[in-house]
Amino acid sequence: MAEQFVGEKNLNFLLYEVFKVEDLLQYPRYADHSREEFDMISDMAMKMGKNLFKPCLSEMDKIQPEYVGGKVKVHPAVKTIMKECGEGGWISALAPVELGGQQLPHTINFIPMLIFAATNYSASVYPMLTSGAAHLIESFGTKEQIDHYIPKMFAGLWQGTMALTEPQAGSSLADISTIAVPAGDGYYNIRGQKLFISAGDHDGVENVVHLALARIKDAPAGVKGISLFIVPKYRAGENGKLVFNDVNCAGIYHKLGYRGAPITQLSFGENDDCRGYLIAQPGKGLFAMFQMMNAARIEVGLGAAAIASAAYYAALEYTRERPQGRPITAKDPTTPQIPIIEHADIKRMLLFQRAVVEGSLSLLMQCSLYSDMELVTEGEEKERYNLLLEILTPVAKSYPSEMGILAVSQGLQCLGGYGYCDEFPLEQFYRDVRIHPIHEGTTGIQGMDLLGRKVTMQKGKAFNYFLEELNKTILAATEDSELTPLARELVGAVENLKKVTSHLIGIALKGSPDLFLADATLYLEAFSIIGIAWQWLKQGLSVREAVKKGIKPNEQNFYEGKLYTMRYFFGYELPKIGGLFKRLMKADGLTVAMKSEYFQDNA
Amino acid sequence: MAEQFVGEKNLNFLLYEVFKVEDLLQYPRYADHSREEFDMISDMAMKMGKNLFKPCLSEMDKIQPEYVGGKVKVHPAVKTIMKECGEGGWISALAPVELGGQQLPHTINFIPMLIFAATNYSASVYPMLTSGAAHLIESFGTKEQIDHYIPKMFAGLWQGTMALTEPQAGSSLADISTIAVPAGDGYYNIRGQKLFISAGDHDGVENVVHLALARIKDAPAGVKGISLFIVPKYRAGENGKLVFNDVNCAGIYHKLGYRGAPITQLSFGENDDCRGYLIAQPGKGLFAMFQMMNAARIEVGLGAAAIASAAYYAALEYTRERPQGRPITAKDPTTPQIPIIEHADIKRMLLFQRAVVEGSLSLLMQCSLYSDMELVTEGEEKERYNLLLEILTPVAKSYPSEMGILAVSQGLQCLGGYGYCDEFPLEQFYRDVRIHPIHEGTTGIQGMDLLGRKVTMQKGKAFNYFLEELNKTILAATEDSELTPLARELVGAVENLKKVTSHLIGIALKGSPDLFLADATLYLEAFSIIGIAWQWLKQGLSVREAVKKGIKPNEQNFYEGKLYTMRYFFGYELPKIGGLFKRLMKADGLTVAMKSEYFQDNA
Repeated sequence: MAEQFVGEKNLNFLLYEVFKVEDLLQYPRYADHSREEFDMISDMAMKMGKNLFKPCLSEMDKIQPEYVGGKVKVHPAVKTIMKECGEGGWISALAPVELGGQQLPHTINFIPMLIFAATNYSASVYPMLTSGAAHLIESFGTKEQIDHYIPKMFAGLWQGTMALTEPQAGSSLADISTIAVPAGDGYYNIRGQKLFISAGDHDGVENVVHLALARIKDAPAGVKGISLFIVPKYRAGENGKLVFNDVNCAGIYHKLGYRGAPITQLSFGENDDCRGYLIAQPGKGLFAMFQMMNAARIEVGLGAAAIASAAYYAALEYTRERPQGRPITAKDPTTPQIPIIEHADIKRMLLFQRAVVEGSLSLLMQCSLYSDMELVTEGEEKERYNLLLEILTPVAKSYPSEMGILAVSQGLQCLGGYGYCDEFPLEQFYRDVRIHPIHEGTTGIQGMDLLGRKVTMQKGKAFNYFLEELNKTILAATEDSELTPLARELVGAVENLKKVTSHLIGIALKGSPDLFLADATLYLEAFSIIGIAWQWLKQGLSVREAVKKGIKPNEQNFYEGKLYTMRYFFGYELPKIGGLFKRLMKADGLTVAMKSEYFQDNA
Repeated sequence: MAEQFVGEKNLNFLLYEVFKVEDLLQYPRYADHSREEFDMISDMAMKMGKNLFKPCLSEMDKIQPEYVGGKVKVHPAVKTIMKECGEGGWISALAPVELGGQQLPHTINFIPMLIFAATNYSASVYPMLTSGAAHLIESFGTKEQIDHYIPKMFAGLWQGTMALTEPQAGSSLADISTIAVPAGDGYYNIRGQKLFISAGDHDGVENVVHLALARIKDAPAGVKGISLFIVPKYRAGENGKLVFNDVNCAGIYHKLGYRGAPITQLSFGENDDCRGYLIAQPGKGLFAMFQMMNAARIEVGLGAAAIASAAYYAALEYTRERPQGRPITAKDPTTPQIPIIEHADIKRMLLFQRAVVEGSLSLLMQCSLYSDMELVTEGEEKERYNLLLEILTPVAKSYPSEMGILAVSQGLQCLGGYGYCDEFPLEQFYRDVRIHPIHEGTTGIQGMDLLGRKVTMQKGKAFNYFLEELNKTILAATEDSELTPLARELVGAVENLKKVTSHLIGIALKGSPDLFLADATLYLEAFSIIGIAWQWLKQGLSVREAVKKGIKPNEQNFYEGKLYTMRYFFGYELPKIGGLFKRLMKADGLTVAMKSEYFQDNA
């Protein structure tokens, strides 16, 4: 198993040089924090990652959750991890001080989340989901609800979940049919089935708190009829004691990867005794849930980048140690072999991985910073951060997810036959990372969200803010002669993005929404590449700044490597938009016109 | 489990309409065959696939080979499969009649190979390797060797293998160090270790016959010192009885996929009693082995395309049955949901899979036809087919392997969360198909083979033959108004390929072989896309021909679908060469200049 899993120098570079997170300390919300505290948090998270999460990475994959007698048994480490995450304040980190949280900026909380996911993605999901669910109760719950659920969840004693998917409602949430019948006494009787619920039941906690979407009896069809409920596995009984709430686990799925977390099928109200507690207004369930879902989408991107990071370092370690072949210019077979990292094609594969990992991390941290800024600003400024976050969420979810798969695959490839064997961690990473384009909205859904909703929202306001952000970076880069050629490349890319966007919106305005959205996935891909190029140029600017200020000799390799990786991205990845834009500009409705029966071929 | 795994109509279309395999019957070698016999072979292969290979696909994945007491225990189905493949003549199909074979054209033998691999790739490897090894003995062995080994191998009683890789010699075969000491009595004493040997030992056969590379004592370093030996697990003893030949299995690997076949570590001559029998001339071992290796490379491509085919049909079946969502133009939530195959993005994913699968199969069958034509022609014509096969082998190996991964991944994506679960076969296909860019020469090695050897060989003769073949297709297509726009696209692509190739060769001539080959993998990718576009245009021509001749009503969907898939390839896949060529034209040596220490980031 490789030693390294994240680049600590890189994280500090992003935090303090690219995103200047210390600037947040000027706002009252964050004024009690300090750089020293942030450093301490990073150190503690590294210790947690190394000592708690990483040691059971492979074992949690091999000894999978078991469904026995209606209950789910998980690896014993889960209980310890939840407890330590509770006691260490990792679940409550983002919450306000008055609720027992640390009021930590998202940008700082990013570090433990990344480290936990990079050392053991499956394990990291338990506390992460709990934190997200608690945050939703915090935002929309009554004081009673907050008092009842949040302390237990923050302590890691109760698990939180998102319970959305149903047999007939996966991507199509409008079709949710779990029913909630008002019982008069402040609760609803819930009845329905939920599928694919992560950590939906397990013996590592005392209780499971589902944030579940359901439809109040007689509510209108579609999304307008969906409400949000707290549905605990055990509810508070009359004397305050917990009683079983008729939340049954009907089974778990056996999966390609991500095996350390049980993905469950749940059945609410089999015996008509499942109580749900309304949270947020009736009919506003999906709106409220989007708070947790948006955060979860960013977390999925982070999880993918984290696994790709661990895979990159494992590949890096191997390629440095594995001798094979000789330089192309020196083929004498009697000379010693060289480490494979010296071959150009291996360096290309490593640069690809690094470009994906560090580009993704930069974009994700950018999103975290927008979240923080949204919390401490008002009016137009607040709206600006909110819209930037809205438009970047599908990108931050899907780019790391899709490209993380390819990055891990290249990491596996660096190890040749060994990469395919389970004595190295790559094969597990390869399986684990494949979940990310699926859960929390598939890549297809993200593409439609970006093009069909985010780009056009408020007459393109979010899109224009995004372009403004890009222009700021481009402008700064054109003042640096070394970065100017890359800035020009990005200008060209942005011009094409605007052209393609207008072209597609023109199609929508002509009344062809199906043609407009047919290639939304390709649009998302091109948009994302440009977004990541922007982040690389931003990092390039920070490198040049650091070099001007003077760097230490031992930092030389890091900064040189950064510039090479940036150039790699512009040289190898950015040109991919050409083919995508070519396609998008001559969208001829091929996939719309293709009839499903044309796939019939058994004539 | 999905019913369909290959497209029978498509295979007949390729065989009889695109490649007009019946034309082979005019040559004496194939004159005893007939269309009726070919159809019978296809039918029998389908039965074998359905009844023998497919039923144990999942079980061979779950109940993996075990290494117990120095022996390898495989699934009991292996023994049956080897026996039935022997008795049915599937192992000997290509061999001359006088050796007990059927002298079948490669183009026809393609069908059972595809069907077996599509129904159970791991299981298909046992007979396939045996056939390849027997063929090598047939080509280079003495009459005695042929008589001793081939009947048992053809009968499926003895397993054949390729034993190349060693701990220090994977991609770098020049470093092979297994030693062969002449013992005078017609044999050599062999000593050394072999790694990653597929089916290198198992209890489904009576004996294992290794075709092993080794170095005769005092042979020169490098490839010139490598010779080829038959190293059986049990050798013929004095009274004709088999005696143990000191070939020891030291262990097996546990792998991501391809689990039904044991990948072994072998140790030759631990007790100084391992005899090897020289085959082909001393020092010509690698040359001889390349016969088996080239065939194996095509078979790897075929294996990848086969798995991608099975995955495509599984995805197709699911998307037809799974209701979810509504048309973009009709969002009323009270209307019934539609099967997801009706969504444009799902059709795009299916078209991608079909384009990869049927494009790959077409190129692979093209290679089979070149093999057949090489066997029945002489002089310049023979050389032409040989060179076409040489230049297309790296493409036929790597395009299906690399794109097969993406195709299976899109298939998995079509199933959403279910694709990630093991109740559907996609997750196994996803694991199985990942081996292909690794074994029989990684994609990186294929790129160097194509650009560094095949394109430049005989002053570009192979490359020019390839261009001539493309031009023939383009010329024919420009006579059809519907195909003309696509033909023009391909002309442009070919012009760019020529330009890029000259540019790169210019770099080589300037004495920078490292810069010349730095992006050989990208060159391979672009070259392959053009090669597949050529095959799609060729298929398009055959469709137009068929339509002109008149097709049956029940064939309408197949031919329409073909044209759509061709247009998909030209619209979505061919444009990808733009970004690749852009990169290749401004090759600035980024990956050569990147120093390995720049990956150091823990300052």
